[in-house]
Amino acid sequence: MKLYEKLADEIETAVRNGVFAAGERIPSVRQASQQHGVSIKTVLHAYALLEGRGVVETRPQSGYFVRELARTQGAWAMSPQAPAVASEVDVSRLVLSTLRSIRTNDAMPLGSPYPDPTLFPWRRINQYANAIARRHASWNLMDDLPPGNPELIRQIARRYAENGVPVDPREIIITVGATEAINLSLQAVAKPGDTVAVESPTYYAMLHAIERLGMRAIEVPTHPVDGIDLAALAQIIAREKIAACMVMPNFQNPLGFLMPDERKRQLVELLAAHDIPAIENDVYHELYYGEARPSTLKNFDTRGLVLHCASFSKSLTASYRIGWAMPGRYRAQVEKLKFLNTLTTPSVPQVAVADYLRQDGYDRHLRHVRRVYRQQARLMTAAVQRFFPVGTRTSAPQGGYVLWVELPERVDSMRLYQAALARGITIGPGYMFSTRNEFHHFIRLNYSYTWTSATETALKTLGELVAQMA
Amino acid sequence: MKLYEKLADEIETAVRNGVFAAGERIPSVRQASQQHGVSIKTVLHAYALLEGRGVVETRPQSGYFVRELARTQGAWAMSPQAPAVASEVDVSRLVLSTLRSIRTNDAMPLGSPYPDPTLFPWRRINQYANAIARRHASWNLMDDLPPGNPELIRQIARRYAENGVPVDPREIIITVGATEAINLSLQAVAKPGDTVAVESPTYYAMLHAIERLGMRAIEVPTHPVDGIDLAALAQIIAREKIAACMVMPNFQNPLGFLMPDERKRQLVELLAAHDIPAIENDVYHELYYGEARPSTLKNFDTRGLVLHCASFSKSLTASYRIGWAMPGRYRAQVEKLKFLNTLTTPSVPQVAVADYLRQDGYDRHLRHVRRVYRQQARLMTAAVQRFFPVGTRTSAPQGGYVLWVELPERVDSMRLYQAALARGITIGPGYMFSTRNEFHHFIRLNYSYTWTSATETALKTLGELVAQMA
Repeated sequence: MKLYEKLADEIETAVRNGVFAAGERIPSVRQASQQHGVSIKTVLHAYALLEGRGVVETRPQSGYFVRELARTQGAWAMSPQAPAVASEVDVSRLVLSTLRSIRTNDAMPLGSPYPDPTLFPWRRINQYANAIARRHASWNLMDDLPPGNPELIRQIARRYAENGVPVDPREIIITVGATEAINLSLQAVAKPGDTVAVESPTYYAMLHAIERLGMRAIEVPTHPVDGIDLAALAQIIAREKIAACMVMPNFQNPLGFLMPDERKRQLVELLAAHDIPAIENDVYHELYYGEARPSTLKNFDTRGLVLHCASFSKSLTASYRIGWAMPGRYRAQVEKLKFLNTLTTPSVPQVAVADYLRQDGYDRHLRHVRRVYRQQARLMTAAVQRFFPVGTRTSAPQGGYVLWVELPERVDSMRLYQAALARGITIGPGYMFSTRNEFHHFIRLNYSYTWTSATETALKTLGELVAQMA
Repeated sequence: MKLYEKLADEIETAVRNGVFAAGERIPSVRQASQQHGVSIKTVLHAYALLEGRGVVETRPQSGYFVRELARTQGAWAMSPQAPAVASEVDVSRLVLSTLRSIRTNDAMPLGSPYPDPTLFPWRRINQYANAIARRHASWNLMDDLPPGNPELIRQIARRYAENGVPVDPREIIITVGATEAINLSLQAVAKPGDTVAVESPTYYAMLHAIERLGMRAIEVPTHPVDGIDLAALAQIIAREKIAACMVMPNFQNPLGFLMPDERKRQLVELLAAHDIPAIENDVYHELYYGEARPSTLKNFDTRGLVLHCASFSKSLTASYRIGWAMPGRYRAQVEKLKFLNTLTTPSVPQVAVADYLRQDGYDRHLRHVRRVYRQQARLMTAAVQRFFPVGTRTSAPQGGYVLWVELPERVDSMRLYQAALARGITIGPGYMFSTRNEFHHFIRLNYSYTWTSATETALKTLGELVAQMA
C-alpha cells in the first residue's frame, strides 16, 4: 500500500469512528504533514483520495471538511448487550448491562437502582453551582483535598446531630459517591483472601467491592422484616475468621426492611465482642416512611468499629457524586486510601451541595419525596398483587423506593428479564443480589418514577409473562 | 450524671466541634425531645443549662441559637502535621502532609505537584458549566455511565487524531482524574503479590498505586535525558516475572525528560516480546516546549498492550477531576473496574469540558501556558545556578513545570524540607520519588506559579539553607 493510501485510510477510519464529525474540519495539509511526518504532496494526494471517496469535501479558503453523508451513527455508543445466562453469573457485568439497556432503550425503568432524577431539586442546586462559578475566579485543588470541603463536612455533621446521631465532624471524609466510601472502608479493614460477611440477598455493590478486592463473601440469611439473622451470623463467627461485616440496616436494597433498634444494638455488640468492624451502608437514610429518621449502627458503637457510608445520590443529586465515610477508628486509613484512589472529590459539586444544605429547602424537598415514595410503594404493591399469578409475594418496604418480589419458583428471573426487555420493560433479576442461585425466582422493582397508566400496563405485561413461565 | 446534663454535654460538644455554628439555631425543644427520646421537660432543663454556660441564647419566638462567643475556630480543619522522618518513609503520608502544609500555611508552593490554578481558563469553563446547568432541567445518572459522556470521549479522540495518535474512541474510558485511570489500569493487569517495574525516580502516584494494591515495585534506573534504562529493564525481565511496567515517557515527573521516539519504540517492543503490559502516564502531553506534541507509546503499540492514562488536570482544570484511560486490549476490564470503583464520573464536569473543547480556545490557551512555563523553566534554572552552592545540578525539562535538583550529597532533603517550611517555603523532598533512599539529596521545584521577586527571595533562602547543610 502506498503512503498516501495508508494516510487516507487512517483518516477515513477516524471519520467512521466518529473522531471527526460531519461538518468538522480535518487537520490542514500543513498540520497533517507535520503530524504524520510525510510530505505536503503525500497529504494532498491522500486528501484528494478522500474527496473522491466522498468522505471529505473542500471549502474555498477554509480547508477540508467531513461530509454529512459520512456521519457516524454514534459508533462509539455501546450497544445494549443481552446479559449472558451462565452457570456462574458475573454480577457486575449483569448489573452494568441492565443499566445500559435502561439507558439505550428508553425502556420502562423498573429495573433501575436509581431514583427518578426529575424528583431532584435541580433548579436550586444548579443555582448554587452557578453562583459558585461566578464567585470564584479560580479554584485551588488543594482547598478541598481529603477529608474534603470543610463547610460540606460541617453541614453533613449538623444533619446527623439534628437527628440524634453523635458525630465528630473530624471523622467525615468526602468521597465520590457511597460506592467509593464502601470500597475504601472495605480496603481499610480487610485484605485479599479475607472473608467478609454480607446479607443475603445483598445490595450488589457490596458483592462488587468484595469481588474486586480479591476477598471472599459469605452470605448470611437475612429476614425481610428483621434484617440479618444474628444467630446465623454468630454461628459463622464461631466457625471461621470474619474480617468485616457489611450491612444495610435502614431500608435495605433489595428487601426494604428497617432493622429495629434493639437488633441494631445486638448486631453492633456481637461484632464488637469479636473485634469485627461493621461497614454500614446508609444511603437511604433520608427516605424513611415513618415519623423520624431511623438510628444508625453509629448510635450503638462505643468502640469506633462502625464504618458508616452514605451519600446524597438517592435524595438530592446523583450526578454530583457526593458521598462520605465516617470510618470510626479507621479514619486515618480511609483518608489515605481516598487520596490514593481519586486524590480528591471535584470541588464545585462539594461546595454547591454545602450551599444548598445551608438553606432550609432540603427538609421540605425530602418531605415531598417521602410522601411520593410512600404512596407509590402502595400503588406498586397493589398492582403486583392484582396482575401477578398466585404464589407471588412482595416485601413491605419501610423506606427507599424498591419492592422485592418473590415469583412462583419455576420462574427464572433472567428469562423474565429478557422477555420483559423485548417488550420495553426492565427489571432487576434476583441473580444480581447474591453469588448463589437462591434468588433466581425473585425480582426487584423500582417505584420512584411518577406513576402513570404506562406503569400499570408494564406491570400487567410483566404479570402475564410471569404467569406464562410459572 | 443526670439525663439533662448528658444531653447538654452532647449538644455543647457538637457546638465546640463546629457542628452548629455561631448564629445557627439548634433543634427545637420538640425536635430534640423526639430525636433523643427524652421528655420535653428534660430538653428544657438541658437548654437552660446551656444558656447558663453561655453556649446558646434564646431569641423570642425563634428558639435557641448558638452564641458568637462559642464560635469554634475551624476545629475540624486538619492542622499541618510535620512529616515524620523515618527509616522507612511512608511515601503517601509524606506527600499528603506536604500538600497540607502548602494549603494551610500559605507557603511559597515550590513543593506543589499542581500547576498554578490562576493559569486555567476559569471564566470560560465556568460559563460552559453554567450553560449546562441552565440547559438541563434534570440529569439522568445513566446518561454518563462508563465509559462516559459520548461527546467528551469524541473530543478527546479528535485531539489525539489531530496529533497523529491513532485512537478508536470506543477505547476511551472517562475517570476521576488520571489517578483513577492509573489505579484501574494497574488492577486490570496485575494482582496482589505481583511485581511491577517503575522508573527511578518515579512519580509517587505510581508507587501509591502499587503499594495500595499489595504489589511489589521494582525500580529501574532512569536517565534524566533518555528515560528508563532499557538494558537494565531487559535484565530485570530476564531475571524475574514482571506483571507490568509503569512509565511516563513525556516530561516525566520529576525528571522532565522527553523520551526519544526510537527509545519509545524499543520500550514497546521489549515489553511486547515478553507480553508485559505498559501503563503509560501521559498527563503532561499538552505542556511540550518543542514544536509539536510528542508521540505516545500508543503510536508504537501494535498488540493493544499499552494502557494509556491522561487527564485535563495539568492543562485545563484540576478541580473538575476529568481523566481518561485508553487500555488497549484491557478495555473491558478497566471499564468494569471503573464501574465498581466510583460508578461514574460526575456529569456536569464531563459535559462542561466537552463543550469547552468543541470551541477553539483550548489551543490558544495552551500556547500561552507553554510559553509561560518554558520561560519560567529558564528563570528557575538560572536562579538555582546563582543561589545554590557548587555541586548542585539541575534537570533540563522539555515540558511540564517541575525542575529536578541534585544537591551536594551531604544535604538531606527531609531536613531541608523542614527548615524551608519554617521559613514559609515548601519543596518536594527526593524521598517522595522512590522507596529507596537513593534520592535523599534531591528536591523537586515547581515553576508554574507567576515568577515574582518573592520567588527569587525564596530560592535565595533555599540556597542559603542548602549551603549551610552542605
